[in-house]
Amino acid sequence: MDVTVGDLDGNCRAVVAHAVDAAAQGAHLLAVPEMAVTGYPPEDLVLRPSFRRASAERTERLAAELADAGCGDLAVVVGYLDDDDPGARRSDGRVGRPRNAAALCSDGRLLATYYKHHLPNYGVFDEDRYFVPGDRFTVVRLHGVDVALTICEDLWQDGGPFRVARAAGAGLVVNINGSPYERNKDDVRLPLVQRRAAEAGCPVLYVNTCGAQDELVFDGDSMVVAADGTVALRAPQFVEGLYLVDLDLAAADADVTGAVEGMRVKRHSAEGEGGGNPPVGPAALAVKPPMAERISDLEEVWRALVLGTRDYAVKNGFRTVVIAISGGIDSAVVAAIAADALGGDNVHGVSMPSAYSSAHSRTDAADLAERIGATYREVPVAGMVDAFVGALQLTGVAEENVQARVRGTTLMGLSNQSGHLVLATGNKSELAVGYSTIYGDAVGGFAPLKDVPKSTVWELARWRNERARRAGHREPIPENSIVKPPSAELRPGQLDSDSLPDYAVLDAVIAGYVDRDLGLDELVAEGHDPGLVERVGRMIDAAEWKRRQYPPGPKISLKAFGRDRRLPITNRWRERPTGD
Amino acid sequence: MDVTVGDLDGNCRAVVAHAVDAAAQGAHLLAVPEMAVTGYPPEDLVLRPSFRRASAERTERLAAELADAGCGDLAVVVGYLDDDDPGARRSDGRVGRPRNAAALCSDGRLLATYYKHHLPNYGVFDEDRYFVPGDRFTVVRLHGVDVALTICEDLWQDGGPFRVARAAGAGLVVNINGSPYERNKDDVRLPLVQRRAAEAGCPVLYVNTCGAQDELVFDGDSMVVAADGTVALRAPQFVEGLYLVDLDLAAADADVTGAVEGMRVKRHSAEGEGGGNPPVGPAALAVKPPMAERISDLEEVWRALVLGTRDYAVKNGFRTVVIAISGGIDSAVVAAIAADALGGDNVHGVSMPSAYSSAHSRTDAADLAERIGATYREVPVAGMVDAFVGALQLTGVAEENVQARVRGTTLMGLSNQSGHLVLATGNKSELAVGYSTIYGDAVGGFAPLKDVPKSTVWELARWRNERARRAGHREPIPENSIVKPPSAELRPGQLDSDSLPDYAVLDAVIAGYVDRDLGLDELVAEGHDPGLVERVGRMIDAAEWKRRQYPPGPKISLKAFGRDRRLPITNRWRERPTGD
Repeated sequence: MDVTVGDLDGNCRAVVAHAVDAAAQGAHLLAVPEMAVTGYPPEDLVLRPSFRRASAERTERLAAELADAGCGDLAVVVGYLDDDDPGARRSDGRVGRPRNAAALCSDGRLLATYYKHHLPNYGVFDEDRYFVPGDRFTVVRLHGVDVALTICEDLWQDGGPFRVARAAGAGLVVNINGSPYERNKDDVRLPLVQRRAAEAGCPVLYVNTCGAQDELVFDGDSMVVAADGTVALRAPQFVEGLYLVDLDLAAADADVTGAVEGMRVKRHSAEGEGGGNPPVGPAALAVKPPMAERISDLEEVWRALVLGTRDYAVKNGFRTVVIAISGGIDSAVVAAIAADALGGDNVHGVSMPSAYSSAHSRTDAADLAERIGATYREVPVAGMVDAFVGALQLTGVAEENVQARVRGTTLMGLSNQSGHLVLATGNKSELAVGYSTIYGDAVGGFAPLKDVPKSTVWELARWRNERARRAGHREPIPENSIVKPPSAELRPGQLDSDSLPDYAVLDAVIAGYVDRDLGLDELVAEGHDPGLVERVGRMIDAAEWKRRQYPPGPKISLKAFGRDRRLPITNRWRERPTGD
Repeated sequence: MDVTVGDLDGNCRAVVAHAVDAAAQGAHLLAVPEMAVTGYPPEDLVLRPSFRRASAERTERLAAELADAGCGDLAVVVGYLDDDDPGARRSDGRVGRPRNAAALCSDGRLLATYYKHHLPNYGVFDEDRYFVPGDRFTVVRLHGVDVALTICEDLWQDGGPFRVARAAGAGLVVNINGSPYERNKDDVRLPLVQRRAAEAGCPVLYVNTCGAQDELVFDGDSMVVAADGTVALRAPQFVEGLYLVDLDLAAADADVTGAVEGMRVKRHSAEGEGGGNPPVGPAALAVKPPMAERISDLEEVWRALVLGTRDYAVKNGFRTVVIAISGGIDSAVVAAIAADALGGDNVHGVSMPSAYSSAHSRTDAADLAERIGATYREVPVAGMVDAFVGALQLTGVAEENVQARVRGTTLMGLSNQSGHLVLATGNKSELAVGYSTIYGDAVGGFAPLKDVPKSTVWELARWRNERARRAGHREPIPENSIVKPPSAELRPGQLDSDSLPDYAVLDAVIAGYVDRDLGLDELVAEGHDPGLVERVGRMIDAAEWKRRQYPPGPKISLKAFGRDRRLPITNRWRERPTGD
């Protein structure tokens, strides 16, 4: 499911619609993602008592609505924000004990509740800030099978619920997620679910969100894995949907009812204490469970960027975007992503040539717009630039920056006038070393390439064109934008390579210094030049203040700029390689 | 001490200088703040193994340097980042077990180490992200007295070290801090230290950082409080210094050497196992311990803003600032703060009149500059604005915003040309409701009034002028800037009151909705108009995307925009008052 943070009514309506569909197809159990009621992550909305109350009440109401919609016999596992003890004062002085919770709704009520045991507090996650961890293992007897509830991080940490599941005699473990995409994460996910299924000794039903929230993209990739590691269902990435599978599950052992070491076990039944609704054989589902093939790494990234851009625009009320298209590779790829996300006719391209712009900057920009079906407009900026340079007598970098800022002001003017979302076109390599003009090319509401290194931008362009060729479509990105040497065109004959190392080298250093937190000595040990890593490290450190004012963009890497990497601006730490 | 994040050598040099001074004055024990070696908070630098190693090694070297400087007999308690087990892999997959640590240096070595027990992870703090908590209580026998080490949050939470101190027979508890300023916090601090001293049954030596780091200002306010609550020393706020006091401490009871329930007790001695350097009577210090009088709330805020602005500028290598002065109150107060922080001759004021600027906007701006000794320059922007409006046919808000953005580009041009830091002049009220132009008046490297509500801006102006009057100096802020009705002057006759409620009312709603996370019903229950709180709440929610791109500024309130309040941009949560 693709839910929206804060849209409690809309999210619950979507849950009911899926439940009606699932019930009509004969399902006994439906699981929807972590915090599907509130959207995930709600961040500091959790600290607002009125929001916590609204979530808890809305979830109760959802259970009733499910019954009203004729789904009372369908057990629905749904994630929500609970506030189990609104009056409690925490050790940090705040009120309430908010919980990241899963409820099993049945017959019009919340039959059982589980509180997330392992709270992630690293990378993009701040769950120790928000939630009190649960220490109770929850089992619900459903048609004679003991179904256990778990949430997201419970799967990623050793110990805890999955270890308890086997001892507690679970016949199925449900794991609901808001697990953000990053490259290669799906390759880690399957072996992990297989490991936990083996630990639990029963199948694991893994359900992930599919959609985007600010800088996070959730790729779905839901699956069902048996205790022996067999994959019974695997949903595609980046596609919201209802996916069904028949499972022949072990009946609960009536003798296993006691407590289990480590977590208290709380048992529930779908038909009152000690009972349980009657066991059933596999339903005769008309649908074959999906077994989605893995897509390539570049396709994954492309679809993450498209989904991230679309959801940011749509969920914030934008139907159209405006992009400064320069004839270069970055703006071409951003425009192609936007066209895939929102349709080419909702993309407005603006070429803003200055005195230093090449002829091909205009022809390539126009070619791009025509290929993707975008509108195209030229707004020469020389007049505005001259007005500033004349009034202020600017030279050098100050003059270069004025060109970029005149373009930024122009874009924002068009956005204000017509209500378009401005997309910034900068990539991760530029953002890392500060090779951009703040309030100039950095303006925008969203930055699709914020976490995409320049080398990958080229790869994505080639991949997207290749996909179009194979499908017999026209290639969206002009070949000339791919092959020309990159240039900011802010002074005559300027090339990126005047100020920066080759992007392949630069991106490798960034991946080490930023994504992996390597020290300069470690980078040198990996074969990089000592002088180069020192220079690049300093550029990265010095650009922190600019990054703080950069728009959000979708995370695709191990460590994205933004909440994933929280460096001080005031920072005199300067490493020097100690070798040679 | 005012230390700088990342400047390990500079910070250690400052510790040695203070130690030499303390030793010369006959001190036995010196305490410097939390993480004085690395600066605080180092944020994600902690995740960099090379940084952790550097801190641990630099702290060892500091102990040797203290001995080399002739301070071997002086015990020095210093905060640092430790990495006690570099190979350990944590449950979240990261390597190392970084600790927020205190060392007692004596005789050239780290005699004892303590690891912070309570880690704050709320508000501006993310210490669960960085540190492994300590569970060991550390006591060092020094001249016959058992001295216990604690760090910051250990003081704010019940349970833990202070409870253990009495049972363990401590004669003095040292508590080193990086405790950020917020209004009225000093009023809470003293009773808290008194409570802990009573719990511990011995004096508490509370030492706080004094300086600023990005959005945090540390106000010092160090103190020594006896078990009966008597204040033996209280240092001034916002003034770095070495403060001395004689204490007559209880000799250690040789019988109390066992373990204490809850935390393991680790005992050390300044003269080898079981020994201890000889007891001494009170030293004959020449200096009377300071007993700083409390300053007024407005003086506190003013000094916090001045220190925050000075440290941000200086620590980031700026000696001069440039400010758009409009003749209005915000820019006048920012300029006066900057003049107090850096000297009036380092302040560059620019008036940028447009077609809609009043005559008094220029005369008041020039008057201000003259009063504070700033340079003053007029750059009319009508020509640049016309170039945009003509090329793009902008009207309404789009045209208003162009005026603001032309000014932003002008300021940045001057900054690029001359190396000035740009100070943004927006206040918390405007930032809350989005009453500013992104990339226009919002440009800047630092925003002194970011956390100051408009009502307080006026109070500060009056307070600062009053202080000048009393001292027989010229008032820095023109009276006309204080009394005129606020206006953005982006269209003829425009006033803030056209679009916003009265600032007194608005600021009360913001204080409830933002600082205290109240729901709209609770605001109505406090007497606010339902329609007004709903309108203001929506404005605040809708402006989140602009705040993300706003420069940093000093936190002075319970909850500042920035890392203190982390709201999603994509957020459909809309409260409506349920009353009437």
